[in-house]
Amino acid sequence: MGILVVGSVALDSVETPFGVGENVLGGSATYFATSASYFTDVSLVAVVGEDFPEEHISFLKSRNIDLRGLTRTPGKTFAWKGRYGFDLNEAQTLETRLNVFETFKPTIPTEYADADFLFLANIDPDLQMDVVRQVKRPRIIASDTMNYWISSKPESLKKVIGEVDILIINDAEARQLSQEPNLVKSARKILSLGVKTLIVKRGEYGVLMFTDSTIFAAPAYPLEKVFDPTGAGDTFAGGFMGYLANTGNVSEAGIRQAIIFGSVMASFNVEEFSLDRLRHLSYREIEDRYRSFKAMTHFEGLSESA
Amino acid sequence: MGILVVGSVALDSVETPFGVGENVLGGSATYFATSASYFTDVSLVAVVGEDFPEEHISFLKSRNIDLRGLTRTPGKTFAWKGRYGFDLNEAQTLETRLNVFETFKPTIPTEYADADFLFLANIDPDLQMDVVRQVKRPRIIASDTMNYWISSKPESLKKVIGEVDILIINDAEARQLSQEPNLVKSARKILSLGVKTLIVKRGEYGVLMFTDSTIFAAPAYPLEKVFDPTGAGDTFAGGFMGYLANTGNVSEAGIRQAIIFGSVMASFNVEEFSLDRLRHLSYREIEDRYRSFKAMTHFEGLSESA
Repeated sequence: MGILVVGSVALDSVETPFGVGENVLGGSATYFATSASYFTDVSLVAVVGEDFPEEHISFLKSRNIDLRGLTRTPGKTFAWKGRYGFDLNEAQTLETRLNVFETFKPTIPTEYADADFLFLANIDPDLQMDVVRQVKRPRIIASDTMNYWISSKPESLKKVIGEVDILIINDAEARQLSQEPNLVKSARKILSLGVKTLIVKRGEYGVLMFTDSTIFAAPAYPLEKVFDPTGAGDTFAGGFMGYLANTGNVSEAGIRQAIIFGSVMASFNVEEFSLDRLRHLSYREIEDRYRSFKAMTHFEGLSESA
Repeated sequence: MGILVVGSVALDSVETPFGVGENVLGGSATYFATSASYFTDVSLVAVVGEDFPEEHISFLKSRNIDLRGLTRTPGKTFAWKGRYGFDLNEAQTLETRLNVFETFKPTIPTEYADADFLFLANIDPDLQMDVVRQVKRPRIIASDTMNYWISSKPESLKKVIGEVDILIINDAEARQLSQEPNLVKSARKILSLGVKTLIVKRGEYGVLMFTDSTIFAAPAYPLEKVFDPTGAGDTFAGGFMGYLANTGNVSEAGIRQAIIFGSVMASFNVEEFSLDRLRHLSYREIEDRYRSFKAMTHFEGLSESA
């Protein structure tokens, strides 16, 4: 029941009110894979340049992430530079150097073609579709995207969305994609594109899940210390898909639990720079925080006769 | 187990992207009392001017609200004029005419002095303290405030907060009052002022409750139609206190249920202009939406042995 993830591996330079990190490990596939690795086997397809430090490779291997799909090509690794103010909800991008990522054409190793779970991280929707064509239909395909692709390649993006089971985007992206400010109406429009489950990430306000007939609302974990929000969304997706793949339970009840595990992983990730918190996280801590989510959201129902 | 509320009764002129209302019924005490009246007996202390329409008096009476504390004095009723853009989270105040409210000195009728539950709506903290002095210590005092009093009368406000059991404010107010951007740290500072329970309203993102040792997170009900957010906070407080007074259960479990009932009432209120939705709301609908909240937030816990 392993997961295949296709996305970016990057070197990030991040500035927050609490500190600065230069050329730290980043990238959507990196955050996703590291987070998911707490729950299941993960194979990663991405590209890095000649400058990519061996220590990062070692770290990913230490998480048992299968790197046979990680290509090293001439040139430099994708580099992102960003800054957060005291409102940690939104990053200000200072610089994006695509480098080797600019000509990235994901090739799925044949050993990966029958993965049960596939996550298409935020890359060009045409490449996402290429990946879908290269694999046997996985049990679950989930995908992410961003404002850039919504405005530049809306038709390609809609085609991909028609192929995936679960779309995981943030609230601004949902509104942009649907051209609808009301989130409930927005969700209905997006579901009509053919995706069965829409998960809308709302940063410090948590997550809303929409299906044709149900809504699930999960809070974010209220933290005293938010150090670096970079990668929170991909860490969420990794915990979410990781738990789904681990249990194989893709019923709505299973998806709801997976959303909480995703929220747990994201809440840990933002506590330190880069994915440093995930370097020393135990499964026991993950379960403890899951129980905190349960305690934090519990209230008594009404008796049916009331 | 009735409730006494002290606050404003107003005539509002409201403009939203969906329509305009001129001189409609408004005011913090009005929204609170109407909402609470679905759960328990409510007595209202406020002031109106000579222009206040008799039909509004009739409506409040039809909700069984005790109006012996509603004074009519020479002059005009408190008038608020505001506008909402497509982002319905924040009102732009166009005009505030305090009128008779400017010299409002709440006098609590002796029949009300032994109310079990007291809500101090958003008025001058010195007046809130006056009210506290006029009543026998109620079982529960809850209060609200606003940015204006936080900046103009911080010391008076902190004295009131030291006297109340439950403070109900929004997230911006919590941050301003505590001078602390992080909400968890902010809550801890506010609790140190002597209040046992802090409820932080976050508009479309729901509510967080903080005590010394616990946090409770409740979502807002995702609505397709938000027509007029005016009074949502006071409607929340009315449902919340109304349910507490109805059951008399002020344990944390009771407070959590009351928060959901408050959220239910607020979710109905914003569906129509002014408090029009509360003019034709049934208790059956309230219970149905409570059950929707339960379904919307439910996920399975982990077994202890997992």
